[in-house]
Amino acid sequence: MATIAPRPDPESDPRVRAVFDDIRATRRSDFVNAFWRYLAFDAALLERTWAEVKEVMVAPSALDPLTKELLYIAVSVTNSCSYCVHSHTAAARAKGMTDAQHADLLKVVALAAKTNQLVTGLQVPVDPAFDAGAAG
Amino acid sequence: MATIAPRPDPESDPRVRAVFDDIRATRRSDFVNAFWRYLAFDAALLERTWAEVKEVMVAPSALDPLTKELLYIAVSVTNSCSYCVHSHTAAARAKGMTDAQHADLLKVVALAAKTNQLVTGLQVPVDPAFDAGAAG
Amino acid sequence: MATIAPRPDPESDPRVRAVFDDIRATRRSDFVNAFWRYLAFDAALLERTWAEVKEVMVAPSALDPLTKELLYIAVSVTNSCSYCVHSHTAAARAKGMTDAQHADLLKVVALAAKTNQLVTGLQVPVDPAFDAGAAG
Amino acid sequence: MATIAPRPDPESDPRVRAVFDDIRATRRSDFVNAFWRYLAFDAALLERTWAEVKEVMVAPSALDPLTKELLYIAVSVTNSCSYCVHSHTAAARAKGMTDAQHADLLKVVALAAKTNQLVTGLQVPVDPAFDAGAAG
Amino acid sequence: MATIAPRPDPESDPRVRAVFDDIRATRRSDFVNAFWRYLAFDAALLERTWAEVKEVMVAPSALDPLTKELLYIAVSVTNSCSYCVHSHTAAARAKGMTDAQHADLLKVVALAAKTNQLVTGLQVPVDPAFDAGAAG
Amino acid sequence: MATIAPRPDPESDPRVRAVFDDIRATRRSDFVNAFWRYLAFDAALLERTWAEVKEVMVAPSALDPLTKELLYIAVSVTNSCSYCVHSHTAAARAKGMTDAQHADLLKVVALAAKTNQLVTGLQVPVDPAFDAGAAG
Repeated sequence: MATIAPRPDPESDPRVRAVFDDIRATRRSDFVNAFWRYLAFDAALLERTWAEVKEVMVAPSALDPLTKELLYIAVSVTNSCSYCVHSHTAAARAKGMTDAQHADLLKVVALAAKTNQLVTGLQVPVDPAFDAGAAG
Repeated sequence: MATIAPRPDPESDPRVRAVFDDIRATRRSDFVNAFWRYLAFDAALLERTWAEVKEVMVAPSALDPLTKELLYIAVSVTNSCSYCVHSHTAAARAKGMTDAQHADLLKVVALAAKTNQLVTGLQVPVDPAFDAGAAG
Repeated sequence: MATIAPRPDPESDPRVRAVFDDIRATRRSDFVNAFWRYLAFDAALLERTWAEVKEVMVAPSALDPLTKELLYIAVSVTNSCSYCVHSHTAAARAKGMTDAQHADLLKVVALAAKTNQLVTGLQVPVDPAFDAGAAG
Repeated sequence: MATIAPRPDPESDPRVRAVFDDIRATRRSDFVNAFWRYLAFDAALLERTWAEVKEVMVAPSALDPLTKELLYIAVSVTNSCSYCVHSHTAAARAKGMTDAQHADLLKVVALAAKTNQLVTGLQVPVDPAFDAGAAG
Repeated sequence: MATIAPRPDPESDPRVRAVFDDIRATRRSDFVNAFWRYLAFDAALLERTWAEVKEVMVAPSALDPLTKELLYIAVSVTNSCSYCVHSHTAAARAKGMTDAQHADLLKVVALAAKTNQLVTGLQVPVDPAFDAGAAG
Repeated sequence: MATIAPRPDPESDPRVRAVFDDIRATRRSDFVNAFWRYLAFDAALLERTWAEVKEVMVAPSALDPLTKELLYIAVSVTNSCSYCVHSHTAAARAKGMTDAQHADLLKVVALAAKTNQLVTGLQVPVDPAFDAGAAG
């Protein structure tokens, strides 16, 4: 079930086609997952979202591609986004995540959520030593 | 402000002292941040929380220490835990996080939250290809 | 699947019947969606919830009915409430939401979640100019 | 800092005065905490919110008053509502919460958040045995 | 659907077997729910998670077992963890939760989420009277 | 307190200067709020975030500017982003939000969070009538 009906033939729109082609080329796979097919209901949103994903997740940057996928999973788990947890876990596997790394990831995100609750329950004041932004 | 008064002299309790000593030794620093000082209101909770943090975050594992700090930040940001964002950003810096990696982290956690909203707003159905757990 | 069994014949309870009749009359439709049928497990909770929904969402107020549905969707998406996203997207459509407005809504809630993460990751201090509540 | 300026003399409005008087009488205390003083910017919202709090939290019901305060804290911690954690922790203490119960509460809400993450990270399918709502 | 394939014969691993046996003995039931069967992908994580659940939720403590289950539900609802809401509602029923208590729980967690939003929307400043942790 | 030190003279960087100039021109105000000044630590992130905010929030679109600010507040409240609630409430006021609309907004986002909890606590199944996306 979804809140919109996906376009029946999205690639008849050349803007959608161009994005899907670039997704396939970038990932070296014919598979275009449902997120992009549903997002195709608005070509401009599709274009900009893919451009941002490509720039942040695909282009070389200060963090390696697998680390970025793990971070994506961490946010998606915390936001309880089921689809996103599935798609980015698959993506992390495709980028080489081992079972041991997957288990490690789960241990960290579980521990973080646990201590987040302890801190918020206690309302621990921030140590002045942590302030990096003295000047405003 | 906090919801409990921290113990006035927590290290007079030998169990608290032992944990604080181990924190200082493990981190090679005299600084014991407020989270641990507040958690000392319950020695058993302090002991177990530190034991888990040490095991998950300090002991060698499939992910390197910096990656684990970045994941901790990602969860803490998404949970809007101000103290935790401060303390784990400081910890990541202490483990070598560069400004470029910090910026990259923020770009990924921001993008993840954005696409989480798009997916949830559209209620995109999970692609069968993502199912890793066919047998129940 | 649900955590309670819905009452087999909820309208045999006159209090439930009265609420369902009012829902049908207010919406000019025979359809009573599952939220109300499940909520009927506790007649008092059903009555009060419908009374509040009617007062906040149906009665004329400072915001028009469609804007209020869009806000309801924004909260439901952010809380990752799948049922609520479905039901309020349908309600917004029934109140005239166009596809372009739906796309616009998604762009705004996605962008807001993104910048929320940036702000929380940076722990940006609040500008004094934003303080509307000087006196306490 | 707040997003509205609290009314300078809220009790000059007889509707606000009536609610504040009832809060003081119900709690047997002269203290009206800031939540109610800020909410007084809209007398109708103040009246209805207090009526609901009184009905759910004060009136005798299937759960005792302290248990209800603990649940309120659990939700407030999970939603990261700093004010709410403070005010309901104080309320729980006023209703008899001991330090040991406070510590126990924190352990449970921390563990729950931790296993929530594990479940969501693994996307564990719901056991059919848990379905209480077979008929829809 | 899940993000990992559960182990086909998890109890062939003696560490998994020992945990499952303890779950069955502790609960006096042959039923081992899916959470534990999926968690068995990492024996150490399974062992430690069960040890913590047993210690926090099963061992006698300052809060009674039913209250702790209700708190678990409150967090799971707020985190939108569908599996967790199902499993802990079933657990609460097994520990004696009545329908009236269930309804009461839902009223409290719903009201708490509502006032959390009002407080956060107004950015109500914390009353100094709530500060329990004057010394840092 | 913040997790980064804002650049001491951000506008000495011509890319930052260009964005700040455009913010001032677009808003017809000399005030550049802290979010942008902190974001200036990474010129590319600053440029792209402002470009997206300008495109989504400033450019004419299917929803009017005030409605979009209200949606931004709704998400920010639900995510418990204090800075964001402050800044977007100020922005909504600047775009004409009346006190009555502000109160209405708070009533809707509070009610939505409340019924989100009821739905999630009951695990209400989605009505088939709500499915807009039959074809996948």
